[in-house]
Amino acid sequence: MPKATVERLPLYLQCLQAIGDSETTVSSDALANVAGVNSANVRKDLSYLGSHGVRGVGYDRLELCAQLRRALGLTDKWPVVIVGVGNLGSALANYQGFDASGFNVIGLYDADPSKIGARVDGQRIKSMEDLELDIKKHEVQMAILTTPAGAAQEVADMLVSVGILSILNFAPALLKLPDTVKCRQVDLATELQILSYYQASRPT
Amino acid sequence: MPKATVERLPLYLQCLQAIGDSETTVSSDALANVAGVNSANVRKDLSYLGSHGVRGVGYDRLELCAQLRRALGLTDKWPVVIVGVGNLGSALANYQGFDASGFNVIGLYDADPSKIGARVDGQRIKSMEDLELDIKKHEVQMAILTTPAGAAQEVADMLVSVGILSILNFAPALLKLPDTVKCRQVDLATELQILSYYQASRPT
Repeated sequence: MPKATVERLPLYLQCLQAIGDSETTVSSDALANVAGVNSANVRKDLSYLGSHGVRGVGYDRLELCAQLRRALGLTDKWPVVIVGVGNLGSALANYQGFDASGFNVIGLYDADPSKIGARVDGQRIKSMEDLELDIKKHEVQMAILTTPAGAAQEVADMLVSVGILSILNFAPALLKLPDTVKCRQVDLATELQILSYYQASRPT
Repeated sequence: MPKATVERLPLYLQCLQAIGDSETTVSSDALANVAGVNSANVRKDLSYLGSHGVRGVGYDRLELCAQLRRALGLTDKWPVVIVGVGNLGSALANYQGFDASGFNVIGLYDADPSKIGARVDGQRIKSMEDLELDIKKHEVQMAILTTPAGAAQEVADMLVSVGILSILNFAPALLKLPDTVKCRQVDLATELQILSYYQASRPT
């Protein structure tokens, strides 16, 4: 499946949930409108799921949701760890949407001894030693990295060494990782610079 | 310029900065290696800047930095506002890289009267009334939205009404905006679901 299609699947799922229970079918036009994607792209993207809709009727909403969830691997909940509990880690720990999105935060971890034992959103912050043990015990494969930039590579290396295969990296550092590990970087400077490209390209 | 190229330009700039001052030239292979992009793609992307490098030598590092900064509209600093000062807004306000990335946070704003006057990283949290005045006074065009999901659309509408043209939206809500406004959404659930797609697609 093309990378751009994969990156739009969560959006379609989110839109279907936003459209709500009142509709049993949804047209590609309606989905395109909510998602802000053109409807030919929507049909093309969904055809990769084997979902073609019915001309003049659209897609069965519940079936399409189920197909999207299967494609995204959301039929079971993924256990996830959050590593680094500063402001950003706390913000993510407080995020209420993990469960509905298909994820289960099994623990929050920090290297700072003064933070260990404190609670964020009802969860106790644990140590880096606990992190290693918990990843092995719960066979965790996904980690959210919210450490300072300087610590990110070292922590990532440790995570990989104990079995983590996917990292969502919020630390502003480019990680060197084995090819077997999938990493997505969320970087504030990058996002702002992409916007500033479009700002600077506006006709004046 | 293709969207995928635009989205890689900040990465190249970051890599060139990571490579550091010791090198006067940089090859597409070296850049490809740091950026984790293949070198043919690097050359193609940079050709859109009119930058072709010299066979066997590479690119002049400083000139390439300058070209990237010009393309990204980073020759002047963009004034930016942060709206919503919860954990996430505080985390972003504490981010030390704005200045180096080409941005100047001119203010933090929140609708909660109990927060107004408190300081985050030395900046005083101001009211939504101040926000409107500051945007007009400083001709701010870029905003970072870190409100709760339920408030995001209303705040975005207000931002647009007073002149904001680019929004970096961290609130987990799909915004309806005029076509003239560029929005980038950073959404935790989306990022995790993209990772889980690749996790679920792994050969077992």
